[in-house]
Parts: sequence; C-alpha cells; structure tokens
Amino acid sequence: MNIYDVSRKAGVSIATVSRVLNGSPNVSDRTRNLVLEVMDELGYTPNVFARGLGLGTIQTIGIMCSDSSDPYLAHAIYYLEQGLRGHGYDSILCCTGNSLENKQKYFDLLRSKKVDAIILAGSKFIELKPRDNDYIIEAAKELPVMLVNGFLEGDNIYCTLCDDRSATHEAAGRLISSGCRNILYLYTSQSYSGIGKLQGYRDALSGCGLPIRDSHIHSCTKDVLAARELLLNLHASGLIFDAVMTSDDTLAVGAVKYAHATGRSIPDELSIIGYNNSSYSVCTDPELTSIDSKIEALCTTTINTLMGVFNGGNVPSRTTIAADLIKRATTKF
Amino acid sequence: MNIYDVSRKAGVSIATVSRVLNGSPNVSDRTRNLVLEVMDELGYTPNVFARGLGLGTIQTIGIMCSDSSDPYLAHAIYYLEQGLRGHGYDSILCCTGNSLENKQKYFDLLRSKKVDAIILAGSKFIELKPRDNDYIIEAAKELPVMLVNGFLEGDNIYCTLCDDRSATHEAAGRLISSGCRNILYLYTSQSYSGIGKLQGYRDALSGCGLPIRDSHIHSCTKDVLAARELLLNLHASGLIFDAVMTSDDTLAVGAVKYAHATGRSIPDELSIIGYNNSSYSVCTDPELTSIDSKIEALCTTTINTLMGVFNGGNVPSRTTIAADLIKRATTKF
Repeated sequence: MNIYDVSRKAGVSIATVSRVLNGSPNVSDRTRNLVLEVMDELGYTPNVFARGLGLGTIQTIGIMCSDSSDPYLAHAIYYLEQGLRGHGYDSILCCTGNSLENKQKYFDLLRSKKVDAIILAGSKFIELKPRDNDYIIEAAKELPVMLVNGFLEGDNIYCTLCDDRSATHEAAGRLISSGCRNILYLYTSQSYSGIGKLQGYRDALSGCGLPIRDSHIHSCTKDVLAARELLLNLHASGLIFDAVMTSDDTLAVGAVKYAHATGRSIPDELSIIGYNNSSYSVCTDPELTSIDSKIEALCTTTINTLMGVFNGGNVPSRTTIAADLIKRATTKF
Repeated sequence: MNIYDVSRKAGVSIATVSRVLNGSPNVSDRTRNLVLEVMDELGYTPNVFARGLGLGTIQTIGIMCSDSSDPYLAHAIYYLEQGLRGHGYDSILCCTGNSLENKQKYFDLLRSKKVDAIILAGSKFIELKPRDNDYIIEAAKELPVMLVNGFLEGDNIYCTLCDDRSATHEAAGRLISSGCRNILYLYTSQSYSGIGKLQGYRDALSGCGLPIRDSHIHSCTKDVLAARELLLNLHASGLIFDAVMTSDDTLAVGAVKYAHATGRSIPDELSIIGYNNSSYSVCTDPELTSIDSKIEALCTTTINTLMGVFNGGNVPSRTTIAADLIKRATTKF
C-alpha cells in the first residue's frame, strides 16, 4: 500500500495526494475529501518511507528517556534537541519511567504519531531478557530506532555507545597501580551500560590477579545520602576497603560524605572515582576524579547517524566512543 | 487561521469546537452545523498530516526552556511532560538559549506547527524592556501562552509564580534574627524571578533598619567554581560578610567551598542559604539550608490552568505559590 495506489485509485496526481497530506490549502474540498476517502478505504497511513518520494514527513523525532530530571539524561535531551533542531527536526519528548509496560506504551504512542524515528536516550531501554526487546526490533521494521548508550542488534537499529567497560577497566587499573587493593564497586543499575562498567572493574582486578569478591560489589539507589548510608553500614560491619568506584557521580559524592563522617582522609586512606564527570564532581571537597562519558559526542554522533539513515547512506549500526578519565583530587594518581 | 478564530466567530468555546472536530456526540446538531459552517467560511482546515488523518487539534504543546540541562529546568520539563501526557498531550521541546532572537525564532516555529499552546518554562523568557515581549502578547491572541515562574500581562497569557520575593525576605529575616549583620547576596540573572529574589533580600534589610550596600550584592555565573572564586576575591579585598544568600544552590555550594578554602566555620562564622532545594543541597558538608521553590507544584498548576483554558473555564491569569525554607546545617536557625 503506497501513495501511488492512493493516487491511482483517487484519479489524482501524486502531487495532489502530497498536498492533502501536508494540509496545503491549495486543494479543493471535493478533492481533499476524495483523497481522504480513498486513503481510508485502502487503509493507507503515511509513513517515513514517503520521504524518499520528496513527500512531507512530520519532521519530528520521538525522544524517550526514563527521567529527564536525571542530570545525565537532562544533558542528553539538551544535546539531542539542539542537534535535531539544527537539522530542522522537532523533538517530541517522552519521560517513561522504568517499567517495561510504560516504555512499550510510549513507544507505541510515538509510532502512532508517525514520528520519523525514535531515539532511546540512556541504556535503560534494553531489557535483560531478550524477548522483552522484541517490540523494539519489530518496530524498527517501520522506522529507524536510535540507541544512545544502549545496545540491541536488529535491522534499522543504530547504537552509539560509550566504551564504559574500557573506562572502568583503566580507572580500576590506575587505582591498583596507586596502591589500592580493596576496591569497592557501587552501581545503580544493571543496564547495558551498568553491566559494562562493572565488567571493566572485574577485568582490571582479574588482570592484576586480585580476587573479585561479592562483598565488595554493591547495588545502591542513585542518591547521595543513600550511598553515604550504605558505606557507613559497610564500614560498621568491618569491611575493609581503600577505594570506592561508582557507576555515577551521585554515589561518589556520597562516598566523600562517608569519608568526612568517619574522618578518613581522601585520597590517602580512601580513593574515590565517580562516573559521568557531571557538575556534582566539583561540588565536593576534595573534588572528584570522574570518568567523562562523552554524552555530547554520543548525542551528536547519534544524530549524524540518523541523518545518514534518512539520506539513504550506508551508516554503521554500532559506533563506540572512548571515555576520558578526568583526574581531580580524590585519587592519588 | 486557527481553532480560536473558529471559536470566536461561532461564539462557542474552544472545547466545543474541539468536540466537533473530534466527532464527539455531545454536541447538538445545531451547534455542530454552526461550527462547521464557520470553519467553511473561514477556510479552516485542520493540518491533516500532523494528526495522522484524525481530526481535532494536534494535541501537542510546545515547551520552551533556555537550557534543559539546568537542574531546575530539567525538573520543570519532567513535570510538564508527565502532566501533559496524563491529559493526552504530546510535548514538543525547544531549548532556546538566552538570546532574544532565538527565543522569538523558536516561538514562531512552534506557532507554525499549530501547537495548541506554548509553555515558557523559567523566568528567562520575559525581557526587561517591555517592547521585547510584544511578540508574546501578539501571539497570545492566537493561542494560550503559559508562563512557569515568569510574569507578563496580556490576554490569554497565564502565569504561575513562586513567591520568590517573600521567600528571600523571610530567609534574610531569619539570618538577621540569628545574628547576621553583613549578608552578601549573589545572583545569577536579572530575570523576573531573579529580581523578585533580590528585592526580598532588600525588603528584609530595610525592614530591620540595616543598610543596603552595593558592595554586598554581586552577580555571578551559575557555576560552583565561579562562586567560590568570587567569594575568595571579595574575602581577599577585605570585605566583611557573615552570611551568603544565593539565587541558586550552585552558588551556595561555591560558598561552602569558599568557607572550606579559608577555614571559616559554617554556620558559626558564616551562614549560607541556597535556592531551589535541588540535589546539590545535600552534596556539601555541612548540607545546605535552601529555599524550595516548588517546581513540581508550579508545573502541575500550570497544566491544570491550561486544561481549564481548553475547557473554556474561567481561570485566573496569575497564580502564586509560596516557597518553603528547608533548614539544614549551613544556618544557625
């Protein structure tokens, strides 16, 4: 079913069908009604593939994020919106929360709006059970799906990733070189990115012949005071640790506050490394060593890839960007 | 030509026009015919493509903010998007930056998309020169314009405000009661909200018979390290101050870091009050006393007001919400 069928059946030109689709006033009511009736009869709904014919699309991209008030995602949305705007595209924003049901609901909603593509910002959209991601693979048959720091294999799905695993591998290696032997790892989620970060920590320990101990790997709510509390409890339980690595700066701020509360000196007695190099990293004294996850570059690349898809170019389905370790005052190196 | 013209000319509410467009049965035949006649007469054609061949409005609200990565605005966008979604509306986001030219450009862009309303999030959209706001007043003749913590008088413009002036008045009063006599005030912008906050500080000083000194009022970039640097410079210049009030938590974090750098004890030698009660307020040791500017309530009220406008209700053009002073550890009270 395509615009040619509509044109043929209605006995009007492609240009006329296009004018009706674009809401142009230069069509008589009679013709408009005829075209709309034929579309209805044929069950035709315009879609992104009309673009190749020079027909109007709605020039709108759906952006989904779990929570736009999260600083990392807030920056992602900023860079995505600005980048899309620069190419003449509007952004419809959906804050989905974390339940799979809501993610699917918003995904379907955006598809029903006939957006030209959907961008999933942040790695929380890819579920651990492969079957739970089938709806994305299925939808990608109809429109490009762009993942910002998430990974899913499928036709018409394009992933731009930060190499989180290498980043934490390098950072943990630096801690070990600077003398740390009991590195605690705190993480906020088991997303694609979260798993990569944790794996990098394990890689470094294994590489140096150090044991990987469950006692030193803990999940924590993404909250400064929750991290402080967790560390105070681990400390009280007698756990020995000389460094804290975290999957998010928020937790690293909590680690600084834990050190203040217990009088441990940073970095002499305790090294701390954050993640994202967010504005939190300069809020503490001492300021946080943190991994810059290159969110601006991830977003810019995502949009360049999307424009490549729209232009029919041969674009890579997976692009990986290296993170940077930003050294401040919570580490000895 | 839009739904408001149809509403006006037919002498029925927007809601009624919307019901006709949506084919709702809750409209009398007489009214339906009247509305359809007026549409015909005015040559009103709903933008077919944008609404996926359904009728009705595009059920989309334009949200403008200067920078979605600012934590205050990031929360505003979150609450606005969620609230609108709950009423079945999409949000098109525009991050405009601060230049008047860009603000106008994006405003016009959103109008050309035939959005149902425009929400201006944050008080940076109202310019000091009244003439620079004329484009908003003019546009409001065609669609409702909602201001979140900004104020502009005009038909079809609805403002939801935090009572920033009373909040800083009260907070400065508490500082004075607790013994502070030389209160420094740091602000980031001369927006409507920024001016109100500064005025509240002046009110408190005047009310207590204390002098208002230019030496104690300073503008500062919204940046932790810039605030720290500014305070270190003022300190080095010999300026005497026993408290720092700020228009944003970011600056208050900088004040804590200034105190750490100079060894001044908080709150004994220096009291500090932030603004927005953001996640920054718990990052420091001691944690920040801060003014909660009620961003969620502002957004919820904005959306309730907008829905009232759509339903033809008699809604207030200005709603003011009181802030809360959240006491933590940087003040003696």
